Amino acid sequence: MTVNRAGRSVPDHIEGYGPVRHYEGAFERLPQGPKVGPLIRRARDGASSKVLKDLKEAIEASGLKSGMTVSFHHHLRNGDMVVNQVIRTCAEMGIGDLTIFPTALFGVHRELMEHIRSGVVRRIMGSVNGPIGRLVSEGGMAEPVVLRSHGGRPRAVASGDVKIDVAFIAAPSADRHGNLSGSQGRSACGSLGYAFTDAMYADHVVAVTDNLVEGTLCPISIPQIYVDHVVKVDSIGDPAGIVSGSTRITKDPLRLLIARMASELIEASPYFRDGISFQTGAGGIPLAVTAFLKEAMIRRGVKGSFGLGGITGYFVELLKEGLLECLMDVQSFDLEAVRSIASDGRHMEISAEWYASPWTCGSAVDSLDAVILGATEVDLDFNANVNTEADGYLLHGIGGHQDTAAGAKLTIIAQPLLRGRIPCVVDRVHCVTTPGEVVDAVVTEFGITVNPRREDLLEAAREARLPLISMEELLHRARRISGPMDPLPQEDRIVAVVEWRDGTVIDVIRQVKPKAR
Amino acid sequence: MTVNRAGRSVPDHIEGYGPVRHYEGAFERLPQGPKVGPLIRRARDGASSKVLKDLKEAIEASGLKSGMTVSFHHHLRNGDMVVNQVIRTCAEMGIGDLTIFPTALFGVHRELMEHIRSGVVRRIMGSVNGPIGRLVSEGGMAEPVVLRSHGGRPRAVASGDVKIDVAFIAAPSADRHGNLSGSQGRSACGSLGYAFTDAMYADHVVAVTDNLVEGTLCPISIPQIYVDHVVKVDSIGDPAGIVSGSTRITKDPLRLLIARMASELIEASPYFRDGISFQTGAGGIPLAVTAFLKEAMIRRGVKGSFGLGGITGYFVELLKEGLLECLMDVQSFDLEAVRSIASDGRHMEISAEWYASPWTCGSAVDSLDAVILGATEVDLDFNANVNTEADGYLLHGIGGHQDTAAGAKLTIIAQPLLRGRIPCVVDRVHCVTTPGEVVDAVVTEFGITVNPRREDLLEAAREARLPLISMEELLHRARRISGPMDPLPQEDRIVAVVEWRDGTVIDVIRQVKPKAR
Repeated sequence: MTVNRAGRSVPDHIEGYGPVRHYEGAFERLPQGPKVGPLIRRARDGASSKVLKDLKEAIEASGLKSGMTVSFHHHLRNGDMVVNQVIRTCAEMGIGDLTIFPTALFGVHRELMEHIRSGVVRRIMGSVNGPIGRLVSEGGMAEPVVLRSHGGRPRAVASGDVKIDVAFIAAPSADRHGNLSGSQGRSACGSLGYAFTDAMYADHVVAVTDNLVEGTLCPISIPQIYVDHVVKVDSIGDPAGIVSGSTRITKDPLRLLIARMASELIEASPYFRDGISFQTGAGGIPLAVTAFLKEAMIRRGVKGSFGLGGITGYFVELLKEGLLECLMDVQSFDLEAVRSIASDGRHMEISAEWYASPWTCGSAVDSLDAVILGATEVDLDFNANVNTEADGYLLHGIGGHQDTAAGAKLTIIAQPLLRGRIPCVVDRVHCVTTPGEVVDAVVTEFGITVNPRREDLLEAAREARLPLISMEELLHRARRISGPMDPLPQEDRIVAVVEWRDGTVIDVIRQVKPKAR
Repeated sequence: MTVNRAGRSVPDHIEGYGPVRHYEGAFERLPQGPKVGPLIRRARDGASSKVLKDLKEAIEASGLKSGMTVSFHHHLRNGDMVVNQVIRTCAEMGIGDLTIFPTALFGVHRELMEHIRSGVVRRIMGSVNGPIGRLVSEGGMAEPVVLRSHGGRPRAVASGDVKIDVAFIAAPSADRHGNLSGSQGRSACGSLGYAFTDAMYADHVVAVTDNLVEGTLCPISIPQIYVDHVVKVDSIGDPAGIVSGSTRITKDPLRLLIARMASELIEASPYFRDGISFQTGAGGIPLAVTAFLKEAMIRRGVKGSFGLGGITGYFVELLKEGLLECLMDVQSFDLEAVRSIASDGRHMEISAEWYASPWTCGSAVDSLDAVILGATEVDLDFNANVNTEADGYLLHGIGGHQDTAAGAKLTIIAQPLLRGRIPCVVDRVHCVTTPGEVVDAVVTEFGITVNPRREDLLEAAREARLPLISMEELLHRARRISGPMDPLPQEDRIVAVVEWRDGTVIDVIRQVKPKAR
């Protein structure tokens, strides 16, 4: 057991994970040596031989065997039908003991629970939102889930921490040459950003599509050179679950107040100038921050450079109105974003590696000025937890939280102090997803709490006469309202390992102990 | 000495090249094992530290030392100013004994001749057009030049045959994050297709630009994650040498006749149907073939899929008129192409690997229906020579000749039988660039000569009542006009090694022996 640089006690070896490299600080671990070299493949006549009859034939052609690792991406979100179809087919074919390596799983994947119980799926490395997370939290999997950020995942693949045997890429459109696109077809999801690394590094790549076009796709997300086989299925997804019709700004006055203060903090910072870049994401508060920022940009005549991350219709609006030069899109959240990426050259599709990997010549997050994030908990040291809920259940992935926080010059966590009677500010978070050293401010309905490490920011906020409140005071208020919180009862057994984006382990999540009733 | 599968005598070891892997046939050599893994780099704050003062500072930062390998790409063609500036700076800094690995050198690079003589440049791996080729042919370099095709080059890098220490990328536009674009700026050249592999595999990447933009570039050819440093210089190129104002169709009736017959052969083939893809290049005859094909497509109501390769305004016209679905552009030849790639999403930039590498899951050439090529000589076995001229001088690179010939379902070499009194059909070519097994037909002013291996094509041509002539008859006519040709006098010394696209050696080129006067 070692107490790491984030103050967390983590064993030196975790059963089912292996030896632990302990978290050393947000920027301490340096890469050494080369990337792994993916298998060289050769296909002389791709177009005539790439398209196979069904998933079974593709799985056979891929050489997939029990014990191997298969990867998936989550651009189809809660509308995805590919993961279930593939694992079901594996089960039917007698292939088991699989490690699945999705970027994220959702409620729609609850079918996997039976395959976990039956041993078809032995291990998950990836975000587990919802029912699978609940199963994991209650000790339903033999091996711990490994959680990685959007940037940590391609880093892990490129550096050889994870070897993908077969990548299954849900492709809203594909041609017979193996070119894939996310922006066309009835299951269009926009960017395929998370799937690039899988395509580039897997030993074998199977594209699964419900829109196999004749001729040549255009534009192309993932080129034919990485795709071994293409399979057409009836449906890869439910459009209603893939993209929301339109993401909505919150109407809750309390949340609007928080969003306004967060926007004002950005405006007061030195980063609010021509060329500002930002990421705000798709939640109600972040969207409202975008709207307030837009007002401020117009009022003060500021023009931004790039908008980053999961892209919404609000960002598309900023682009169209000339307030942003371009969008860098690793995941398109709504229909407006999907339409835009398909038609506007300034709306660029970027890979997860480009978006967020810590081990490149500089990823997009490294050029980011400001990011608005959420968290289920923040503590006295500004550590943020985005993985577990107040009851200790692992219900959320890391997403780009670690990456943008580490990269952005100004990282703001904006959210109400209380959800019901549950405080979001605590003494000590249940799990450290993102360390306090990369969190610059927390904005709640009680005001702006600046990390003392950022004296410059505190000074700027004071000058702008923004309402400031210390973390201690915030915690005091939270306690007064919520009353004393009992420590969460938990078992010793580790059910999930939280990696920092550089591959060190920043924390672990343990099995929940059912409350006595 | 071994006689290889193309019938050429090649030593088993070549001084300055190493052990020879002999050519085994166009599709025999299979890749084994993985690609090489490029060095993992990390830059936390790219935007503020990537831009360096000048080339000297960038070369220092790159760690470039004597004896290393530096790479360049040739999209600026005969207008390029980057190669000379970089090598001159190396010379000034006392760095020598360099291997240079350009995609191609042109007349504008004659300045390199002094650096070859002085030992700053020891070795060239790449196409040598013009004066450097002349120097090489006369024995002016200690080590043989290594010639690779556009697809063979990225294959060589990815498989580890060539390690690039520092890649210098001439970038018509760059931003401070290290994103590069070829389609904007006063030195715009369109696609940066050949530079992708260098960016992805070099230990260190320096972008050289004369247009450093504030904010973020868009669209982006090569992303920031691969670029270590950016240097701004006064000029990277002379626009007049970069793109021609407009590529022109031949007006010579003889060449028009040849082009018409080539087009008619395509029209008579089974590949002339909806979805046809083709590459025709930028020469006078190929452009005329494009024009005739266009007529045929309109006349017969055929719509094509993709146009490939070096892209000209004529291909842009086909795109705009709906006769092609999209363009896949590894090199933009004229202003129309540069304008189009910058503004039309259907005009796609592709890497050289995507274009032509033999070791992928299927490159664009593998999906190609028809290609029109030239050659300085073709022989009885349909072998083609594109490297040496009639006097034995090495004056041209391989380009995509091998790749498209190997990939396309219909490979046509179209050109006059005679240039002056010099025949282009001979008993035995001076050098085999592309073996006869992948050449389907030769079209001259005397008619269409179909490779006997392609009985199906011969049948189709007969059915269409196209004028056919056998290779023997063609050779007979050539001889009758030109008179007997003496064998070229040459020294024993090997001045260039011609690799087949899979890394085997298909032929060697020897030093020319000055004629007695």
